[in-house]
Amino acid sequence: MAGNTFGKIFQLTTFGESHGSAIGGVLDGCPAGLKLDLNFIQSELDRRKPGQSTITSQRKESDAFEILSGVYEGITLGTPIAFLFRNEDDKPSDYENLKDVYRPSHADYVYDAKYGIRDYRGGGRSSARETGARVFAGAIAKQLLGTEKISIRAYVSQVGKIKLEKEYTELNLDKSETNMVRCPDETVAGKMIQQIEEAKKGGDTVGGVITCVIQNVPVGLGEPVFDKLHADLAKAVMSINAAHGFEYGSGFEGAAMKGSEHNDIMLAREGKNKLVTKTNHSGGILGGISNGMDICFRVAFKPVSTLMMNQQTIDSSGNAVGLKGKGRHDPCVVPRAVPIVEAMAALVLADHFFRNINSKLKT
Amino acid sequence: MAGNTFGKIFQLTTFGESHGSAIGGVLDGCPAGLKLDLNFIQSELDRRKPGQSTITSQRKESDAFEILSGVYEGITLGTPIAFLFRNEDDKPSDYENLKDVYRPSHADYVYDAKYGIRDYRGGGRSSARETGARVFAGAIAKQLLGTEKISIRAYVSQVGKIKLEKEYTELNLDKSETNMVRCPDETVAGKMIQQIEEAKKGGDTVGGVITCVIQNVPVGLGEPVFDKLHADLAKAVMSINAAHGFEYGSGFEGAAMKGSEHNDIMLAREGKNKLVTKTNHSGGILGGISNGMDICFRVAFKPVSTLMMNQQTIDSSGNAVGLKGKGRHDPCVVPRAVPIVEAMAALVLADHFFRNINSKLKT
Amino acid sequence: MAGNTFGKIFQLTTFGESHGSAIGGVLDGCPAGLKLDLNFIQSELDRRKPGQSTITSQRKESDAFEILSGVYEGITLGTPIAFLFRNEDDKPSDYENLKDVYRPSHADYVYDAKYGIRDYRGGGRSSARETGARVFAGAIAKQLLGTEKISIRAYVSQVGKIKLEKEYTELNLDKSETNMVRCPDETVAGKMIQQIEEAKKGGDTVGGVITCVIQNVPVGLGEPVFDKLHADLAKAVMSINAAHGFEYGSGFEGAAMKGSEHNDIMLAREGKNKLVTKTNHSGGILGGISNGMDICFRVAFKPVSTLMMNQQTIDSSGNAVGLKGKGRHDPCVVPRAVPIVEAMAALVLADHFFRNINSKLKT
Amino acid sequence: MAGNTFGKIFQLTTFGESHGSAIGGVLDGCPAGLKLDLNFIQSELDRRKPGQSTITSQRKESDAFEILSGVYEGITLGTPIAFLFRNEDDKPSDYENLKDVYRPSHADYVYDAKYGIRDYRGGGRSSARETGARVFAGAIAKQLLGTEKISIRAYVSQVGKIKLEKEYTELNLDKSETNMVRCPDETVAGKMIQQIEEAKKGGDTVGGVITCVIQNVPVGLGEPVFDKLHADLAKAVMSINAAHGFEYGSGFEGAAMKGSEHNDIMLAREGKNKLVTKTNHSGGILGGISNGMDICFRVAFKPVSTLMMNQQTIDSSGNAVGLKGKGRHDPCVVPRAVPIVEAMAALVLADHFFRNINSKLKT
Repeated sequence: MAGNTFGKIFQLTTFGESHGSAIGGVLDGCPAGLKLDLNFIQSELDRRKPGQSTITSQRKESDAFEILSGVYEGITLGTPIAFLFRNEDDKPSDYENLKDVYRPSHADYVYDAKYGIRDYRGGGRSSARETGARVFAGAIAKQLLGTEKISIRAYVSQVGKIKLEKEYTELNLDKSETNMVRCPDETVAGKMIQQIEEAKKGGDTVGGVITCVIQNVPVGLGEPVFDKLHADLAKAVMSINAAHGFEYGSGFEGAAMKGSEHNDIMLAREGKNKLVTKTNHSGGILGGISNGMDICFRVAFKPVSTLMMNQQTIDSSGNAVGLKGKGRHDPCVVPRAVPIVEAMAALVLADHFFRNINSKLKT
Repeated sequence: MAGNTFGKIFQLTTFGESHGSAIGGVLDGCPAGLKLDLNFIQSELDRRKPGQSTITSQRKESDAFEILSGVYEGITLGTPIAFLFRNEDDKPSDYENLKDVYRPSHADYVYDAKYGIRDYRGGGRSSARETGARVFAGAIAKQLLGTEKISIRAYVSQVGKIKLEKEYTELNLDKSETNMVRCPDETVAGKMIQQIEEAKKGGDTVGGVITCVIQNVPVGLGEPVFDKLHADLAKAVMSINAAHGFEYGSGFEGAAMKGSEHNDIMLAREGKNKLVTKTNHSGGILGGISNGMDICFRVAFKPVSTLMMNQQTIDSSGNAVGLKGKGRHDPCVVPRAVPIVEAMAALVLADHFFRNINSKLKT
Repeated sequence: MAGNTFGKIFQLTTFGESHGSAIGGVLDGCPAGLKLDLNFIQSELDRRKPGQSTITSQRKESDAFEILSGVYEGITLGTPIAFLFRNEDDKPSDYENLKDVYRPSHADYVYDAKYGIRDYRGGGRSSARETGARVFAGAIAKQLLGTEKISIRAYVSQVGKIKLEKEYTELNLDKSETNMVRCPDETVAGKMIQQIEEAKKGGDTVGGVITCVIQNVPVGLGEPVFDKLHADLAKAVMSINAAHGFEYGSGFEGAAMKGSEHNDIMLAREGKNKLVTKTNHSGGILGGISNGMDICFRVAFKPVSTLMMNQQTIDSSGNAVGLKGKGRHDPCVVPRAVPIVEAMAALVLADHFFRNINSKLKT
Repeated sequence: MAGNTFGKIFQLTTFGESHGSAIGGVLDGCPAGLKLDLNFIQSELDRRKPGQSTITSQRKESDAFEILSGVYEGITLGTPIAFLFRNEDDKPSDYENLKDVYRPSHADYVYDAKYGIRDYRGGGRSSARETGARVFAGAIAKQLLGTEKISIRAYVSQVGKIKLEKEYTELNLDKSETNMVRCPDETVAGKMIQQIEEAKKGGDTVGGVITCVIQNVPVGLGEPVFDKLHADLAKAVMSINAAHGFEYGSGFEGAAMKGSEHNDIMLAREGKNKLVTKTNHSGGILGGISNGMDICFRVAFKPVSTLMMNQQTIDSSGNAVGLKGKGRHDPCVVPRAVPIVEAMAALVLADHFFRNINSKLKT
């Protein structure tokens, strides 16, 4: 049973291999009557696309999307929104050396074992190119959430050993987009960029962490007991290529705390039942349900697996061989993963927004 | 749209409030012909139940399950397996002081806001008692997985500030059950127990971390692109009460590594296509699909919110009030959460085992 | 992948074999705040239960339901509503002769072939007793729909060769419950009863047809393109034991008509966009979406398979043997199937009511 | 919650409005390793396309499909198979007169009411053009089923008042494709064609019935209790435009029969547990599960609503107006619906084939 569909009411299905004719998706469950800002969609895609700066892959991907259905004169029809991106810049020659070899820590091997067939021309379905479809759909989700004033902003908070020590509350998140690593603190951003450039120079790569902040969330999003809001956020971002860890609120640090330190003292109730607490170790979510405080989570990404240096691996006969990466790959995935994290968060929030609508009888 | 169902083919739905007449579940999609070991189910439930040691809640819960359907003469029929636990030891008087007050960092407030109705007698649906149904179903999943020799073992690797620094490969995991905190290293276990007892003495609580190891997993489990094996594991364990973080393989530490350190050198292919790698930073999963190496993940739990000390909070009119916990609560959740983590992992593995069956045409 | 769950948002899962300890279900997705009329639920169950008249099975079934969760002080909590009926009057001795024999036109054979295991004590999961869970959930759905003034009424319109020739518009549907065959025309009801009694006397059984009328349906229920309202109604009622046919509006007769006869001339728009047409060959549904006119459909039921006479069949070794029914069976299924048809229709309507809520943006 | 997805394991999502840029679909859950016969897919599409004969719509539709993903060198990859058909021959001018008018017995009105937005250029999502995507996916399902020797053949058994009185067992089903109305009896076919031509001449349309026969079905397909094989077939074909009735086996006639006439005497067990019965009133399905006998069902279609004559209707202000159809429409839908019925049946069978695989433990 395939896993290419995400969401229950606001539902995205993606398709496409990196070197097939197109990648794309079908977004179903978007209500009729939403006026789409196509420029905004494009600007979100531009934040994800390779070649945007000197610290990302220099690969060129077509960033021209085509909407096939579900939109008429710029307004959603309530029917499935299908869209695609043509694959243009494929250089299968970059991959010919991979025909019979598996790349270390790549998905080549397991795809071959699982499906018994291998399209060696690039990552196929495991390629990060698939995330373009997520960003497209996420841009629509953001516009929907925007009608409710919900905002979602992510930024890079760690690259390799360089960590941004400040909390998001001490930062101006609007500054994230002013530098190519997407870190809202300029000084730290400079160090991060240097770290990436050094890795790149050595043919190496480096991991990182993205922090995401969701603000103005209404109380009540998230469903007991399995579809807790943070559980669905965890799944959403862990499904992004290279993600290795997720934490929200106090996260792993919370494990070392005492209850008397960790509990968020309730101060007041505001507006539409939003809670105000002194601290926010709960990360805006109690028992899996949003409480109105900011939602804050972090995602860890491993370093990119394709290296421009020699590595030992095996071929399809199981024999040991050496392999050196070719092509144009990212030395660090996190700058381009920022809009993907935001997109996945937006898909979760939009889905839960609609799921919550029938929680109680209207009176 | 409610969230009480988990899994796609091997599917659990749970029901029940902590102070209603029963909690239970329906496990659908279990094949016919599995001979159930009911004693094993009971032993798994015993690992979760309160009152099992001096460092857990002294609350008594009925641990007697009743199977209502789906099993005939000890063999599964292929039909839904419904089961329940009666609620017996409810002392609503423990909760009377909560009628108009919200407990800090508890789900009371958001349930009330979401549903517009409040059963103040305990946690209702957010109560950890619901996890009994998960352990029951997980025990059946484990028996199914056992027919494929897949094993799942979790243990406590951190309590408050006490961390078990050894990797699982340096430990004898069979020792986890020899002490009441479920840590396989006796010396560290002793310190953990002390940490919990100190917290308890002060009316306080403490968080912790559980590590889970899954061995002998066949290659190919996990579905591109959203239902990656680790994404579904993340969701599964993040849906357990108090979970605040998830990481697998290298996890958050991987973010600080270089690709040349992180990549797992492929050494060989063994048996049914299992991969052998030098290191296992990938945590047994590549591109969301199991590669045959051990799967290892960690879950962070915040400290329990109910404290036996005074805390500031608000009442249902939004006014500030003081509150002190009553009743019998856990000073630390992790010892009893070990079987719950295992159960959720077993549900994910069993579901993905069946989902993978049709990945390629039989020839 | 099992099929014990019905509905997408308002969702029922049933469980239980006829001779296990209980049958029941979990109804998930019912909003919080619905005040339940438990007497109404009981009265619906009484309409389905055996032994209610001389023309139904004389088997006694416990009609006492127990609600396990989801309801507090008579109000729904928004959490799963679990319920059960204990099995009490099982006489396995009635079934001993079936241990190695398959009943003609029964599900015994295919269950055995599918699951490789057989609980010969009655129909197991294929027993009509399972429909009690549907009627229970349907009674809650009816109460939900009642808050929107939607009414659902079914009646018997054919028993064997006796047909009620009048349209529902010529009948007083409130009279259906005044006789034991549930036909609103007393004269025809008398003939139907006679037909059933004759069949019963001869150890035989007879089929029939149920007509169902749904009134005051809001415009807009039903989802393009697969989940058309009539497609979901068809599936719902065809899943009832012994159902062999479904038609709505003009049905099979419509196939013989010309477009100029069949088209429903539009006359006006009323109230909340309800359509008024001269005729109603469309059966209240256009393109799969309700138009506000009455929905009318019919379901054909085959005669009950268990006969009190000798029949030829095969045993589990494939040899020809004779078999005569034992026990207490219905000579005609339709009088008791009336509330089941209504219940399934109510589940479909309630589900589509919630599914439609997000069809367009609120402005 | 949208309804554009069909199937649980072998799952089709369709998209596209009749006058948008393309219609198409995503078929997910097809195992890897199936060698596709693209010519067969095209030949199935040709059976559905308009303009194929003098008794169908003369509209020209592009019948050129493009596969976007999921297939490499003609072999399925196990990943989603996305495909599309470009819309080319749209003549919006044909529809300009509809801008403010609703067509009688069409979906215009309800779409407008449901979504609050109207693309008056043709049927939008309710257009029969969407069924092209079903036929495409059905052609792949047929190839999968072909590897199991399962065959699905439908034919026209009624046009208006002309009925084919013979049972399928008395006919040579291979002859259905030898005439343009798709009736395997040449004499009756001639009368049917005449009936359609007469209707066409008068600007009128006529309904009809399609019979579908599925042979060599393995025992065990179909899931208790809601997803009975015939219930899923009913939903599948009732979701085709203009379908108004469904019956299988004895169908509505069975309602008039006695149990002693209706029961199918079991004669033997053959091959892989296939049942052999004297009669087949059960239509190859017992208790919702295939028994190995032929599955036979019938679908009634109403006459096409668009007439080339004046009809009374209302405009968007609710005022009475006259309307006469323009454009190129079918005088009778059933000849072109034959491959659509087969496609939907193939989707159901393929899905249930995979769903049944885990019904019992492999030993």
